[in-house]
Amino acid sequence: MKKYCYGICLLISITINILLSIYIYAGGENNQEISHQLSLTWSEKAAAEAEAVAAISCSGHGRAFLEGLIYDGQPVCECYDCYGGPDCSELSPECVADADSGDPLFLEPFWMQNVADSSILIPGWHRMSYRYDDYTMMSTELEYYIRKLHSIVGNAITEGRYMVFGVGSSQLLTAALYALSSENSSSPSNVLATIPYYPMYKGQTVLFNSENFEFGGDTNSWRSNNSTNNMDVVEFVTSPNNPDGELKKSVLGGKTIHDHAYFWPHFTPIPGPSDHDLMIFTLSKLSGHAGVRFGWAIIKDKDVYEKVLNYISVADMGISKDTQLRVLKLLKVVTEKDGKPLFEFAYNKMKDRWDRLTSIFSKSTRFSIQKRHPLHCNFYNETRLPSPAYAWVKCEREEDDDCGAVLEASKIVGRSGSSFSAKNRYTRLSLIKSQDDFEMLMQRLTELVSLENGSVETM
Amino acid sequence: MKKYCYGICLLISITINILLSIYIYAGGENNQEISHQLSLTWSEKAAAEAEAVAAISCSGHGRAFLEGLIYDGQPVCECYDCYGGPDCSELSPECVADADSGDPLFLEPFWMQNVADSSILIPGWHRMSYRYDDYTMMSTELEYYIRKLHSIVGNAITEGRYMVFGVGSSQLLTAALYALSSENSSSPSNVLATIPYYPMYKGQTVLFNSENFEFGGDTNSWRSNNSTNNMDVVEFVTSPNNPDGELKKSVLGGKTIHDHAYFWPHFTPIPGPSDHDLMIFTLSKLSGHAGVRFGWAIIKDKDVYEKVLNYISVADMGISKDTQLRVLKLLKVVTEKDGKPLFEFAYNKMKDRWDRLTSIFSKSTRFSIQKRHPLHCNFYNETRLPSPAYAWVKCEREEDDDCGAVLEASKIVGRSGSSFSAKNRYTRLSLIKSQDDFEMLMQRLTELVSLENGSVETM
Repeated sequence: MKKYCYGICLLISITINILLSIYIYAGGENNQEISHQLSLTWSEKAAAEAEAVAAISCSGHGRAFLEGLIYDGQPVCECYDCYGGPDCSELSPECVADADSGDPLFLEPFWMQNVADSSILIPGWHRMSYRYDDYTMMSTELEYYIRKLHSIVGNAITEGRYMVFGVGSSQLLTAALYALSSENSSSPSNVLATIPYYPMYKGQTVLFNSENFEFGGDTNSWRSNNSTNNMDVVEFVTSPNNPDGELKKSVLGGKTIHDHAYFWPHFTPIPGPSDHDLMIFTLSKLSGHAGVRFGWAIIKDKDVYEKVLNYISVADMGISKDTQLRVLKLLKVVTEKDGKPLFEFAYNKMKDRWDRLTSIFSKSTRFSIQKRHPLHCNFYNETRLPSPAYAWVKCEREEDDDCGAVLEASKIVGRSGSSFSAKNRYTRLSLIKSQDDFEMLMQRLTELVSLENGSVETM
Repeated sequence: MKKYCYGICLLISITINILLSIYIYAGGENNQEISHQLSLTWSEKAAAEAEAVAAISCSGHGRAFLEGLIYDGQPVCECYDCYGGPDCSELSPECVADADSGDPLFLEPFWMQNVADSSILIPGWHRMSYRYDDYTMMSTELEYYIRKLHSIVGNAITEGRYMVFGVGSSQLLTAALYALSSENSSSPSNVLATIPYYPMYKGQTVLFNSENFEFGGDTNSWRSNNSTNNMDVVEFVTSPNNPDGELKKSVLGGKTIHDHAYFWPHFTPIPGPSDHDLMIFTLSKLSGHAGVRFGWAIIKDKDVYEKVLNYISVADMGISKDTQLRVLKLLKVVTEKDGKPLFEFAYNKMKDRWDRLTSIFSKSTRFSIQKRHPLHCNFYNETRLPSPAYAWVKCEREEDDDCGAVLEASKIVGRSGSSFSAKNRYTRLSLIKSQDDFEMLMQRLTELVSLENGSVETM
């Protein structure tokens, strides 16, 4: 009996030995993987914080941020327009469709999908100096990726051109104006743009009440009133144009600032590379990161380049180094696979929105939108319709001379024509906001157009 | 015998079981910790990249950055001044001591020590919008921490005051000028400062050739030439002053812009909270992050506040959201334990540098530095000497009327008095650069002063 017990006990014990060994061996496989991951030390806290706040559920209609809304010491959901409640799940049925701003959130889902490749970790001691190693305030590596991007997309010549970074394209508009305008205060440069134009051109020109330049208004009016002497003009050429998406050319043929904020394949076919004296681009309408204030100017002339650079230096000693690091990371993703993933995503999103928009407006005689003309796109190597960032809506009925008011009565907020020095018979509707915003716009527009036939259609 | 074997085998087997169990149990402790760490998913790549580049050894005389010098696709060391070689270990013996710029790298070691608490991870989709949830372009949470900081340090009244963020204090200087100057272009405001003054005041004032303001030069000269009518002046009051560290007061008593870039306990005793109409601060000289372009203005008057805010909005639509997130994280560390760790570190560093500097200059009759007067510091609750960011060196010998040239002949580069509209008999030496820079400065100054006694002392 005792001998029998020894045998059983030994068998059990050996079995346990084997099981424990298997457990340890299998665990060891995991441990190896873990120990690879374990090599993170000081960065882990920041990473864990970022993941924790990103994991807060806001029902897809909001988001929590580390530096955002705080309740009881913890970040809480910031809900998108029309949504409320602690987890942003409550849709306000009477909500207004806000299509006013050019907030490019339509690209947010792309960055959600590519979050692992597009995130950065910035150590506390990162780039404390005013300057980089080469004594400039601009990252050479970032400049290299911007040139690579233009070469991939084929939308601008950068070989042999100078580049300056700015706080968004906004700052570069002023810097360019400063660089191109007269230094002779007895005859200030006339700053012009073609109606309908982006209101900031006037806003920035008049801000300082400078003796070197003054706002001259619309190019066509100016040309008819000033038959000779095109020398002292600086013309803003916005191509594609904000608000109507037209590919514009200089009207006056003098000095120009080409604002190419929207010159990307998701908004317009790219007929060929732009090769103007001073071209301005912005990250905002390329990748959708409007909150990252970053733009760049591509400049032919060395003197102009040096003036723009001097302006940025005197105005604010360059662009935050953390911003430059972030933009570099984003552009690395944008330029992956020759730009295909980002631009396919962005184009498909815009095309889908335009398809739905034109379908609604095709049922209307009261409202029309701009005509779009197919063009050959070098980037896609095929002929495509543009899909502009904004719909430029016209109220066709004679009595609807305040188109913005007509839309607002139907809970649609756009930006009135007069904001662009055009008639209020026009209103700009933004098509680049979040999917929630766009869905609300579609709903309200469908309701509005349905009224023309005297009955409200169901969605 | 067989029974004996059973006994031994069982004993061995049970022992192995016990050992394996202990191994698993001990491992399990680790596993729990590991599984906590394992929860990182999308953030891990960015964290690992940041740690990998930070781990590149540059001998303590340089640093590698993700967006910095790249060789063969990999980041490599960027060496500090005077150091070279692949790992920055080679000191150039004939190197010049560059004490020109106000690059505040003296605080870098503090952020190295506190890297885990001061780093941030920014997901690719972070804050793509132009605005925050409250429709502003400024983080409320960041504003809260700035107010908390001033309350801890006791250097500014913020209760009931407005705040505006800017791209460094640089941009706010112009914004303040814009907000305070005359709107009547027939009598532009006179912009004044007291010699010796920071050259950017003039640089920014003349940049736009504005009809609203013009640079009037030195307050004292202006007062003697313009006995009445102080109404149309805007006076920059820099306190502590750059370059000489003096706590300045308004000379003219009209409208003022108080530049408080250096009004922190490591540079000056804080006699009490500043309570002026428009005060400007910058992160650069507080935490040492000059590369992060971030400053703020504290403003009493609502109209002035709205003008400053409008300026920032028109100029560049606010400050990068990633910059604001980073500044918030840094200020959370700065305000920890009522600011003690950061300010103790910074003060001790500056005090040590001044002790060594004064020891050298005490041996000289050819060169002198500014006198420092003890003051009660409310923050430390004791009387202390100031330890300004810059030494304001005077060449005492009559023939040394170009002090900068005298220093340069001994391989010391400062910033000449004329840069501050003072005499070239003065030169500013920066004391806030990296420890390497400071050591080189000490070495060169020691050599120079030793020459006065006809022999070169050994260090």
